[in-house]
Amino acid sequence: MSKSFWETIPGKNIPSSLELYPVIHSYLQDDYKILDIGCGFGKISLELASLGYLVTGIDINPEAVKLSKAASKSPELDTETEGRAEFNVGNASYLPFHRSSFDFAVMQAFLTSVPDPQERARIIQEAFRVLKPEGYLYLVDFGQNWHLKIYRKRYLQDFPVTKEEGSFFALNPETGETEFIAHHFSEKELVFLLVDCGFEIDYFRVEELKTRTGNKINGFVIMAKKL
Amino acid sequence: MSKSFWETIPGKNIPSSLELYPVIHSYLQDDYKILDIGCGFGKISLELASLGYLVTGIDINPEAVKLSKAASKSPELDTETEGRAEFNVGNASYLPFHRSSFDFAVMQAFLTSVPDPQERARIIQEAFRVLKPEGYLYLVDFGQNWHLKIYRKRYLQDFPVTKEEGSFFALNPETGETEFIAHHFSEKELVFLLVDCGFEIDYFRVEELKTRTGNKINGFVIMAKKL
Repeated sequence: MSKSFWETIPGKNIPSSLELYPVIHSYLQDDYKILDIGCGFGKISLELASLGYLVTGIDINPEAVKLSKAASKSPELDTETEGRAEFNVGNASYLPFHRSSFDFAVMQAFLTSVPDPQERARIIQEAFRVLKPEGYLYLVDFGQNWHLKIYRKRYLQDFPVTKEEGSFFALNPETGETEFIAHHFSEKELVFLLVDCGFEIDYFRVEELKTRTGNKINGFVIMAKKL
Repeated sequence: MSKSFWETIPGKNIPSSLELYPVIHSYLQDDYKILDIGCGFGKISLELASLGYLVTGIDINPEAVKLSKAASKSPELDTETEGRAEFNVGNASYLPFHRSSFDFAVMQAFLTSVPDPQERARIIQEAFRVLKPEGYLYLVDFGQNWHLKIYRKRYLQDFPVTKEEGSFFALNPETGETEFIAHHFSEKELVFLLVDCGFEIDYFRVEELKTRTGNKINGFVIMAKKL
């Protein structure tokens, strides 16, 4: 269900409620090649390209990739930005890149949309593989917010079906129908997803993140280093 | 082991590395009777008494209670502060107070020192019992810091003996010998400890807390309301 949902929804409807956290700028260096995993319609990729970095965005949704390409040619961007950003349709579990291809990877509110824990592990392994040694993964995602009654209720209520703590049905805000399974992470879960692959946690902060429906909930901003 | 440790260590050695978080002041009202559970040598109790509140401190360590009483008579405090603070030796699992005796309770870095989860539940129940309806529990304690290698290692290493995730042996900083079992909480654990007793979470924030050894780690600052 979930895969076809993300492949087929209109590209402009892919949630993109987060901005880049400033910490990223103290890790980026001038000549960096950056991979944006789950780039959606390209908002973050183009922001990074406009700052001078070479950016490759990848997303499973063909229409979103088309929108990203079109946006990179927007008259509002300078022509250099266009030259610095490219976009591909692809699956984060099988990245179409050689090992050690990138200096830096961005994965922002992407894992939350992957309902299968084994697929999440595979995605982190792939990010690890395509990064150069000493490269960084900037990972931002939603935490389990047990203190908020509305989320506590959803985690508990949907658990018998999702079979995973912190997973719940994300509903269409207008129709109320289930659109996909979303996952909120515990700190332990996210940390072991990274360290089990060989990443070291270099920066870790709990921050308030905005969800696609505008709720403000706690999440994690992480810089993980490939050793 | 743990109980006798906390009863018998020199009162001045009871850790007191935290200050009050400012949020507490937006909840306190002028005529409030406050209970400080696990007051140690009285630092927080006397701070609240000096602000004009009627404070009762309770601790299992007789020497700490003696020190608290002596400090309340210190010439550095005005005589009114002395009249507003009283201290008792007592066990937080069996509070020597009638139900609905207090408007407000403070429990700061206390539960971390209670190694038995059932005893922690009993302590929260007792705090609930002695609070008036609509009363608040200000609870601050350490979170599980899986992202910090030093704590991740201790949680994993000591688990086979402590049998509880997030518990570990706290060592004497000088001799390196085990002094007591400390517990770090997951958000879920702390939230259910409160809501299962009938508390509602009114305020919840992840903050950086200082441990007794000076480490800065994440913890929780919570205002829980008795419904």
